[in-house]
Amino acid sequence: MARRACIIAGGMCKWGVREASLVDMAQEAAKDCLEDIPGLKPKDIDGFFFATSYAGRCSFQVNTAPVIAERVGIKPTSICARVDVLCAGGSTAILLAKGLVESGMADIVMVAGGEKLYTPQKWEVFYSELASIDHDWDAPNGLGLPPPFFALTAKEHMKRYGTTKEQLAWVSVVNYNYGAENPKAQFQKKLTLEEALGAPPVVPPLTLYDCCPITDGAAAVIVAEESRAKDLTDRPLVYIRGGAQASLHSVSANWPGEHLADWAHLRVAAKRAYESAKVGPDDIDVAQTHDCFSISEVIEVEELGFCKKGEGGAFIESGQTKIGGKVPINTDGGLLSCGHPFGATGIRQAIEIMKQLQGRARFQVEGAEIALTHNLSGLNVEHTIVIYGREPVK
Amino acid sequence: MARRACIIAGGMCKWGVREASLVDMAQEAAKDCLEDIPGLKPKDIDGFFFATSYAGRCSFQVNTAPVIAERVGIKPTSICARVDVLCAGGSTAILLAKGLVESGMADIVMVAGGEKLYTPQKWEVFYSELASIDHDWDAPNGLGLPPPFFALTAKEHMKRYGTTKEQLAWVSVVNYNYGAENPKAQFQKKLTLEEALGAPPVVPPLTLYDCCPITDGAAAVIVAEESRAKDLTDRPLVYIRGGAQASLHSVSANWPGEHLADWAHLRVAAKRAYESAKVGPDDIDVAQTHDCFSISEVIEVEELGFCKKGEGGAFIESGQTKIGGKVPINTDGGLLSCGHPFGATGIRQAIEIMKQLQGRARFQVEGAEIALTHNLSGLNVEHTIVIYGREPVK
Repeated sequence: MARRACIIAGGMCKWGVREASLVDMAQEAAKDCLEDIPGLKPKDIDGFFFATSYAGRCSFQVNTAPVIAERVGIKPTSICARVDVLCAGGSTAILLAKGLVESGMADIVMVAGGEKLYTPQKWEVFYSELASIDHDWDAPNGLGLPPPFFALTAKEHMKRYGTTKEQLAWVSVVNYNYGAENPKAQFQKKLTLEEALGAPPVVPPLTLYDCCPITDGAAAVIVAEESRAKDLTDRPLVYIRGGAQASLHSVSANWPGEHLADWAHLRVAAKRAYESAKVGPDDIDVAQTHDCFSISEVIEVEELGFCKKGEGGAFIESGQTKIGGKVPINTDGGLLSCGHPFGATGIRQAIEIMKQLQGRARFQVEGAEIALTHNLSGLNVEHTIVIYGREPVK
Repeated sequence: MARRACIIAGGMCKWGVREASLVDMAQEAAKDCLEDIPGLKPKDIDGFFFATSYAGRCSFQVNTAPVIAERVGIKPTSICARVDVLCAGGSTAILLAKGLVESGMADIVMVAGGEKLYTPQKWEVFYSELASIDHDWDAPNGLGLPPPFFALTAKEHMKRYGTTKEQLAWVSVVNYNYGAENPKAQFQKKLTLEEALGAPPVVPPLTLYDCCPITDGAAAVIVAEESRAKDLTDRPLVYIRGGAQASLHSVSANWPGEHLADWAHLRVAAKRAYESAKVGPDDIDVAQTHDCFSISEVIEVEELGFCKKGEGGAFIESGQTKIGGKVPINTDGGLLSCGHPFGATGIRQAIEIMKQLQGRARFQVEGAEIALTHNLSGLNVEHTIVIYGREPVK
């Protein structure tokens, strides 16, 4: 019989500005995760992934996986590896865990991730950001930190489709208001449209609440083979039905779309992910998309097929991403409110989706059966999608 | 029918001290790999892993996978990720590719790896080395660079088992003499026992030829699903039968063996790998073990089960790792002669094993059917094993 991978537990440390090391935060997250699944003993965990990008530079720790495995108290005998896909490292590691579990190479894998970005040397983070793009090509041509790049993207979308500053602001308002109730989020703050519109500029047209913050944090989930999962928990099983990660270009000169607001590579990833999970965009009951900037979520709801191209702003403004709308999105606060410790973000998303499909989310989407997480990484060079369901693919 | 993963092509750039960037070397290696399999079009490659540890610090490039994928001319739509397990990154990425292919998430994956370690700032390499161990625990206690650690290990093995300096030297003599014929190796130099014994000290008892060098280099292989592999090549198929990666500890204070020359974690990895591949140590016809230091290979032949504990030195001295011996080892020169660009080493080993099982190696082991690669990583905190065969596991 085919082996299937399920996500059965998850946990996080408090995200924000932390006086804690990366290893400390990973330990907190793993403890929170293990407390979510009382039947699981650390010795049963045979695989471990840790997703991080800046650990070498900002935490002075390369080869983080064994260091963190020991601090967490597990002794993996199938796999113990660090994964780095920048902002999509966590979701990528979940896909890798799926492969190992389904192939029979591992039975129970902890997938964790995190970053320590507030350091005494603040320039380390920006220095690392400059090393995260293609440093031979884009950096010398002036493309470095993300805000200017996504500001250009926002301008393009506004020009072509009439997207408004108010529509961008609605992304932040909706997501902040979810995050206000999330004790692990960086910000617990309700946001009004007026506050969002009156915020100071970052790079026009993007203002403060259009941009996710710099964040310390870690998160962890358990991916288990179906029969082991059934032994370990009475909660509804959440199957990892499918996924994909597309990387069609790296340097900005080879952008795969017609223009900066046309994310052809996300469409490729979405098509492949939907096919692997045997579902379509209309089947998605709840989603977590990569709202690193408000404009990102606007374009993502289009390219993921939740609305027509160009209509993302109106879709969000009309309440379709709120509970009761067509596809509730970022129901735990998203990157905008929770923050974005790169390697941890896809794992945070997976935790929220697991809880939604098990009926135990803070803002519960009633009867949710199929769900999706999405990450972009780099200067929009990769897209990673994972699709979850209450039923396995048949 | 179960999906199976095969390794069907491989290539390397010249290893050594290179006036080339990491991305340049990865491109050279990928070109060499693609030329090894004329039927394969870059557009057919749907997955890409890049294994590297020091790219962030020494090459100022984080999130290397999409940058290198683009330079290589491939557009992955299943996976595109960087893997870091230090010295075992390459072999770990091969295990991950196996999982993706067998689970149906990918069909044809390029697994590449490399490091650029000679930089204008030579201290960057040593600085990164210090960040590669557990920097909270081992570094402040004086355990930093590998040579002193492996010198202690050698002293322990000599004291307990009577291993001699001559036996250590034989490891280097055998491996250098294989490497002398390998145009991609860092050193093409035959070595006599007298030269090895007369070499200058590094950390006693280890001398120059007991230690692998600092190396620039990259390597790449193609892992393909069985039916696709059959369409692409008429060469014998080389199946990835199984493997494992054990990480039982991180800090030296929690060493899992009875003493430094007792590698209990390697035995755990070996047992699990053999079980997954349904073979035992006596079935291995040819192997590539991690000879970062001569003492490493001595202990590895013991813990992998090729000879009894304590007899590794005599096993190698008596010629059992040469062609015609019980288990020819490091038949392309190993780390000692080829060099050790961390993320690339497991991939170099896989290329040599593939060629051995296809009957096209430089120093051919006649009729080889089952083969093994082994890597250790960090200050001996992880062991990774991959087992290959002319037949799949049944």
